[in-house]
Amino acid sequence: MKIPAVAISRLSVYARHLSVLDTNGREVISSGHLADLCGVNPAQIRKDLAYFGEFGVRGVGYYVKELLFEIRKILGADKQWRLALVGAGNLGSALLRHMSRADRGYRFIVAFDRNPKRIGERIGEVEVKPLDAIDRLIEALDIEIGAIAVGPESAQEVCDRLIRAGIRGILNFAPVQIQCPPHVSVEHVDFTLKLDRLCYRLTSES
Amino acid sequence: MKIPAVAISRLSVYARHLSVLDTNGREVISSGHLADLCGVNPAQIRKDLAYFGEFGVRGVGYYVKELLFEIRKILGADKQWRLALVGAGNLGSALLRHMSRADRGYRFIVAFDRNPKRIGERIGEVEVKPLDAIDRLIEALDIEIGAIAVGPESAQEVCDRLIRAGIRGILNFAPVQIQCPPHVSVEHVDFTLKLDRLCYRLTSES
Repeated sequence: MKIPAVAISRLSVYARHLSVLDTNGREVISSGHLADLCGVNPAQIRKDLAYFGEFGVRGVGYYVKELLFEIRKILGADKQWRLALVGAGNLGSALLRHMSRADRGYRFIVAFDRNPKRIGERIGEVEVKPLDAIDRLIEALDIEIGAIAVGPESAQEVCDRLIRAGIRGILNFAPVQIQCPPHVSVEHVDFTLKLDRLCYRLTSES
Repeated sequence: MKIPAVAISRLSVYARHLSVLDTNGREVISSGHLADLCGVNPAQIRKDLAYFGEFGVRGVGYYVKELLFEIRKILGADKQWRLALVGAGNLGSALLRHMSRADRGYRFIVAFDRNPKRIGERIGEVEVKPLDAIDRLIEALDIEIGAIAVGPESAQEVCDRLIRAGIRGILNFAPVQIQCPPHVSVEHVDFTLKLDRLCYRLTSES
């Protein structure tokens, strides 16, 4: 059964709010209250969860810790994922610093850059290595996901290199479509698409 | 009629590929070829465009320049939007440098930061101003969109301030939900949601 990507993103949002509730010592939450927090309606939560089984208790709601545990398991977020960054420029450095503060299931282990001046630099928790070290270090450090934050002109080359080194998951920040074989998953982070949406609304509402 | 946000994002993608085709001197493209480039099927393109009118010629395809012009008009991308950034740290600086190179309909005009050390600095094409200047400069510089790249703890405060200054469109990079009145549009850029999707696929396929 194919689960829509938007349902998976909503599960992430549910998990985030459940995590805050759990930290605050909350044990049970009504489906209506959880829905309000997440900006959806209760039926949507039920529908999204129904892909994976039965959750929640009629007349009670959801047990916070239990539901959080189950959603994390579904998302694969019950483990810590090991990431490598390629491209330690402005955007790359911002990512490294951001993630080193974030208490989530993702951790940058290493960064790679083409620029000799950046090699050896420590950013956040990681050290910048030369591009040529990709082949060796991806396997040695047991990296599972590669984040690409290089310019559009070298994104495909970097992507091919990561895949040759064994990477199966790619988060692409370069403003360009990259081609991958079917066994590799790619997500493209492109905020200009969001800007386009925003401007469409600003235009059509004025 | 309410157009789904995903349709708007697909229009952005069509526009991007049409723009490349146009730059390369291509005048006509078959619907099948355009669909391949954009990673959708021809029926999807027809359906997305049908919200707005009739485009394309049976047996011919689409006239590149004409369709690009029409989509840009639909998206409100036929003008240049004036942006302000709040938060000129790592992520903010990365955005400023990225956008100053991008030849698109968006331009950062000014940046604001709380940190006295950053005030007066030039990043990309703009100068960093103190937070207190928001009220005055948003109107004086005719800013339409505010991008928030501050920490989660001050995102709401910055958002309120932008709205008081007259902003109606907000692009939020802070990893937190912000509350806005109904006349303000918000888009949230959160790459950890994309990471979650990626890890879900890596988990469910293994």
